[in-house]
Amino acid sequence: MTVPGGRVVCAALNLALDITYISDHFVVGEANRVSQVRAQAGGKAVNVARLLQQAGHEVVITGFAGGLVGEEIAHQLDEWAVPHCLVRCAASSRRTVSAFSVQDAAVTAYNESGPPIAAAEWEQFTEGFGKLLHDARLVVLSGSLPAGLPRDAYRTLAGLAAGAGCETFVDTHAAPLLAAVAAKPALVKPNEHELAEAAGLTVPVPLPAAVQAARRLLDAGAQAVVVTLGPRGLLGVLPGMSLLATPPRQRGNPVGAGDAAFAALAEGHLAGQPWPDRLRRAAAMSAAAVRQPVAGMVRAEDVAELEALTEVSEP
Amino acid sequence: MTVPGGRVVCAALNLALDITYISDHFVVGEANRVSQVRAQAGGKAVNVARLLQQAGHEVVITGFAGGLVGEEIAHQLDEWAVPHCLVRCAASSRRTVSAFSVQDAAVTAYNESGPPIAAAEWEQFTEGFGKLLHDARLVVLSGSLPAGLPRDAYRTLAGLAAGAGCETFVDTHAAPLLAAVAAKPALVKPNEHELAEAAGLTVPVPLPAAVQAARRLLDAGAQAVVVTLGPRGLLGVLPGMSLLATPPRQRGNPVGAGDAAFAALAEGHLAGQPWPDRLRRAAAMSAAAVRQPVAGMVRAEDVAELEALTEVSEP
Repeated sequence: MTVPGGRVVCAALNLALDITYISDHFVVGEANRVSQVRAQAGGKAVNVARLLQQAGHEVVITGFAGGLVGEEIAHQLDEWAVPHCLVRCAASSRRTVSAFSVQDAAVTAYNESGPPIAAAEWEQFTEGFGKLLHDARLVVLSGSLPAGLPRDAYRTLAGLAAGAGCETFVDTHAAPLLAAVAAKPALVKPNEHELAEAAGLTVPVPLPAAVQAARRLLDAGAQAVVVTLGPRGLLGVLPGMSLLATPPRQRGNPVGAGDAAFAALAEGHLAGQPWPDRLRRAAAMSAAAVRQPVAGMVRAEDVAELEALTEVSEP
Repeated sequence: MTVPGGRVVCAALNLALDITYISDHFVVGEANRVSQVRAQAGGKAVNVARLLQQAGHEVVITGFAGGLVGEEIAHQLDEWAVPHCLVRCAASSRRTVSAFSVQDAAVTAYNESGPPIAAAEWEQFTEGFGKLLHDARLVVLSGSLPAGLPRDAYRTLAGLAAGAGCETFVDTHAAPLLAAVAAKPALVKPNEHELAEAAGLTVPVPLPAAVQAARRLLDAGAQAVVVTLGPRGLLGVLPGMSLLATPPRQRGNPVGAGDAAFAALAEGHLAGQPWPDRLRRAAAMSAAAVRQPVAGMVRAEDVAELEALTEVSEP
């Protein structure tokens, strides 16, 4: 697959410093020594941007950064040589801490909620965002919205993108998802919980009900819907077609698996890859991410191996 | 009790950024939203310094700080207006994360091990430490040693203090404890586990065995030994005298309780308080610290209440 030109603008409105602690076993209610520590820039859009950059795409990350944690986030992006254009906010940026217990193959995560954004900061952001669109081809809007932003923040950004001739991919939930759909994004990627929430269903959602709920998002404006169903795989719902891609089951850290799938879907979109291949690769990327203890990482060998083992069929 | 003059130099060789997450309940193996976040400078000597400063003593904190986490530690000390004199180290400072689940009254802590210190950095530290001793009266050496330092680092510092006419309090474990004792510190404060480790015993240590093990530390050079025995209270062992101070049992966060006891013991020492009163107050401070969700904090009302309820007797 050749890498098409045109920059991908990744909006990480709720950027984080992701701290991962890895140990054979963590004991609840005790003081644990941490044997391995990783600190990296995080937030769903950051994971997507890194994976796209690894695949050879030109990317830029935009978002808010505040305080010394914000400086550390910018520093970590520099370490990776990922271009960024961050708006300084008055409140301190957030951290997430994930404690990965290898023996139990379990992750306990603690997610700070993040800095509230002032109206003037949001205005500054949208202005800068407009400039980033000049040489962009795709916009990725991924993650929750920080406090202080309007619920239709993603609709605003998708609207600006459309005005500049850019397509938009959206990965979020609840009100921001429903608002964004109206801006006719090229793709929205709810997970099972987010789809259930949007459609008023309960988890687990049976496949026919998931297809039906996804169709309602198409009716509301989305051009394609991909639902991540955990171990059941990826459900792609398009006008006139539904496909399910199921990778082999993995044990590991599911945090960031959805972002890996999202990056693969963006790549497939930019390359005009046929949908069955696109979903197969996205499902394999997602499963490969589960194998990695640190969120948002995949190994190319794992993706290739899992892609061959992923089945694509009608749901 | 009037506050006597003379500065207390608190050496925090393994300084940390202590992050505390508070929530009604944290679910193991899941992603938890954190409702309350506190970030503060930490490390045992920092807790002691803050409590002494709150009580009106002049203090200064010295230690190593590296990277943006190091800057954040310095920033937090500034926020508290605690004077500090930190040596920059090349490696990044450490964090500790404590997740306090209110419903379960349980804390799960994740302690990073901290930056390794280079020989030149240690040399720079001891030079600066010597200068801080000029107008000091007491030196507090508390906490584990970072990687890279000699095991007898505390003996070196206690020796420098003695040369400048300063007394030394030591709170550490294993080899650094045994090395420090030879420098004849005014007091060492192992907890039950540390005492058992030093004496080759197993936990729980029966009281008579604890007294005997503490006497061996006296024989090796310590002028007083206080053992923190968790809910059993504080055991003070001096030449010719042993006392046990038992506060009422508390539910809460025991992290930092030992530091609160240590601060009270330093205060009592500086004021020449009689030993039974000193131990009673230290036991009450320790119990008051358990009541606070954030490590190293106490409320004066709690201390007063608990002091009245603490029993002091021969063990």
